[in-house]
Amino acid sequence: MDPLPSWNDGATKEAIISYVQDVTNINSPNFIDVNDRIATFDNDGTLWSEQPVYFQFFFAIDRVKSLAADHPEWKNEQPFKAVLENNMEDLKKQGMKGLIEIIMTTHAGMTTDEFEAIVKNWITTAEHPVKKRKFTEMVFQPMLELLEYLRANEFKTFIVSGGGIEFMRPWTEQVYGIPKDQVVGSSIQTEYDYNNGNPVIKRLAKIDFIDDKEGKPIGINRFIGKKPVFAAGNSDGDLQMLRWTDANEHKSFQLYIHHTDSIREWAYDRKSHIGTFDKGLDEAQEKGWTLVDMERDWKVVYPFEL
Amino acid sequence: MDPLPSWNDGATKEAIISYVQDVTNINSPNFIDVNDRIATFDNDGTLWSEQPVYFQFFFAIDRVKSLAADHPEWKNEQPFKAVLENNMEDLKKQGMKGLIEIIMTTHAGMTTDEFEAIVKNWITTAEHPVKKRKFTEMVFQPMLELLEYLRANEFKTFIVSGGGIEFMRPWTEQVYGIPKDQVVGSSIQTEYDYNNGNPVIKRLAKIDFIDDKEGKPIGINRFIGKKPVFAAGNSDGDLQMLRWTDANEHKSFQLYIHHTDSIREWAYDRKSHIGTFDKGLDEAQEKGWTLVDMERDWKVVYPFEL
Repeated sequence: MDPLPSWNDGATKEAIISYVQDVTNINSPNFIDVNDRIATFDNDGTLWSEQPVYFQFFFAIDRVKSLAADHPEWKNEQPFKAVLENNMEDLKKQGMKGLIEIIMTTHAGMTTDEFEAIVKNWITTAEHPVKKRKFTEMVFQPMLELLEYLRANEFKTFIVSGGGIEFMRPWTEQVYGIPKDQVVGSSIQTEYDYNNGNPVIKRLAKIDFIDDKEGKPIGINRFIGKKPVFAAGNSDGDLQMLRWTDANEHKSFQLYIHHTDSIREWAYDRKSHIGTFDKGLDEAQEKGWTLVDMERDWKVVYPFEL
Repeated sequence: MDPLPSWNDGATKEAIISYVQDVTNINSPNFIDVNDRIATFDNDGTLWSEQPVYFQFFFAIDRVKSLAADHPEWKNEQPFKAVLENNMEDLKKQGMKGLIEIIMTTHAGMTTDEFEAIVKNWITTAEHPVKKRKFTEMVFQPMLELLEYLRANEFKTFIVSGGGIEFMRPWTEQVYGIPKDQVVGSSIQTEYDYNNGNPVIKRLAKIDFIDDKEGKPIGINRFIGKKPVFAAGNSDGDLQMLRWTDANEHKSFQLYIHHTDSIREWAYDRKSHIGTFDKGLDEAQEKGWTLVDMERDWKVVYPFEL
C-alpha cells in the first residue's frame, strides 16, 4: 500500500517516508515519542493555491461588494471605489493602509458566530476567477495524503498560517481533517459581551496578532507550546517556522514547496509578490532541507484531476 | 465498572454520568458529535488546591529567594524585602504593583526553554507549606477520574486557567493527561531571536493576556475556536466560562466546585480572597448548574488518601 499515491517516486517521496519510518520505529535512535510528534503546515501556497492573490483577499472583495448596497458612499471613496470598479491598479495605489481598511471593514463589526456563518456561506459558493473552481477544490492532493499519512503515524497536525484564524477554522476540519483548536493564524482583537444572558464575542477592528515570519515561532509557542518535528511551507514567511523546527532536539524534517508548475498550477518564486520564495530557497539548498518540485514530484496537483 | 469511584453516590455523580450517557448516545436527541465534545477545566481550586495562596505564587516566592544571591539590593527594596523576610503583611501592602513586579522578575528575562526547566525543577522538589506534600500531589482525585471518564467518552479536555500558561504546560501532560496545546492560560509577551542559528524565544516583562473572567471566553475562542459543551470551575473568575458553555446550542453541563471541606482540604467561598465564590454560587443555584459539595460528594480529595 503506497501511503502517498499522488507523489511520483523519487528522492522527495523517499525522504518523507524514510523520515517517518525512522522516527516512529521504537528501535531507532531517532524514535520520537507520540506526544512530541507535532507537525505544522503553512496554508496559502502549501495546502492550497495562493495565486493570483491570497484567497482570503477574494473573500474580502466579495464581501465589500455584498456590503456596498448599504454604503452608497463607497462609490466615491477609496479603497472601496477601486474594489467596486474592479480596478486593481487603483487598488494597489491604496497600499497597506487601503488593504487594512478593507480587511477591517469586511472582517470586523460582527460576532464570531456571525463571521463563521459568512465564511461558510462564501467558501461553499465562491469560485476562483481563473480556475473556475471552488476554492476548497484547489487544495493540493499530495498534501492531503501527507497530512493523512502523518496522522496515521500518530503525528498531531496543525495549520500555522499568516491567514486569518477565523477565516480558516470554519472549513479546515472538513477539508484537511484539522480541528479548529489545531489552527494557528493571524487574528483581530475580540470582546466578550454578556448581552443580557445571550453571550457573544464581538470582532473588533484592531489587529491582535500577525502569524507570519517571526510570528510563526511565536504563534507555535503560544498555541502549541512545543517545537514541531515536521514543518512544511512555501515562502520566506515560513522560514522562521522551519528554522524553529530545525532547532528541535529530535530529528526533524523541513519541507519547502517550490511552485514550478505553470501549467497545472502557477510557477513563481524569488520575484513573486505573493509567496516570495527567495531567502528560503537559498537556505533550503544550503541546509539540505527537502524541496518539492511541484512539476516533477506531484502526479496530480488538485483532487479534481484524479 | 464505576467510572468515578472516588465520587460518593448521589445527585452530583448521577448528574454527570447521565449527561455523558445522554450526549454520547447516538439515538438520543441530545447526541453530540465527537468533534464538538469540548470540555474545559479551570485549574486553581478546580483540578488542584489553591490555598492559602495560588501555588504559582509559592513558585514566585521560591524563585525570588533563589535569585536573591545575585541581588543584594533586594534586602532593602520592596517588594523583595518582604518576600525575603517572609513578611506577608508587608507584602500585601505592596498591592498589585508589587505582585506584578514579583511575577515579572521571576517569570521573564529568560528563554521559554530555560523557564520550562526552572518550572520542572521546582514542581518536582517544592513542598506545600501546610500539607507538606508536593504540589502535584495536591490534585483532586475525583477530578482526575472525571477527566479520564470524559476522554474515554471522546471528549477533548482542555485547561482554561488564570494561571500562567507556561507555568502549567511543563507538568499538565503527566499529571492530568492534558497535552501542552490543550492548555489555555495567562501569558506574557515573547520575542523570537534567531540567535545566530540557535533560535530561542525570549520571555518579556510585559503582560500579554489575562485568562480570567471575560478573558476565559476570549481565550476559549482564541485557542479552541468552539464553545465547550462541558465546563468546570470553582470561583467567580469562572462564571463567564460557564455562561459561555451554557450558551452552546448543544446540551451542555456546568460544574461548580464548592470548597466545603475544612478538614481534608479548605472551606471557603463568598468572602475568600483566593477563589472568591459569590456571584457564581448564586447563579449556579438560580440556573440549576451542578454544585459539587466537596465534603459530601468526594470519597477522597487527594490521590495520596487512596
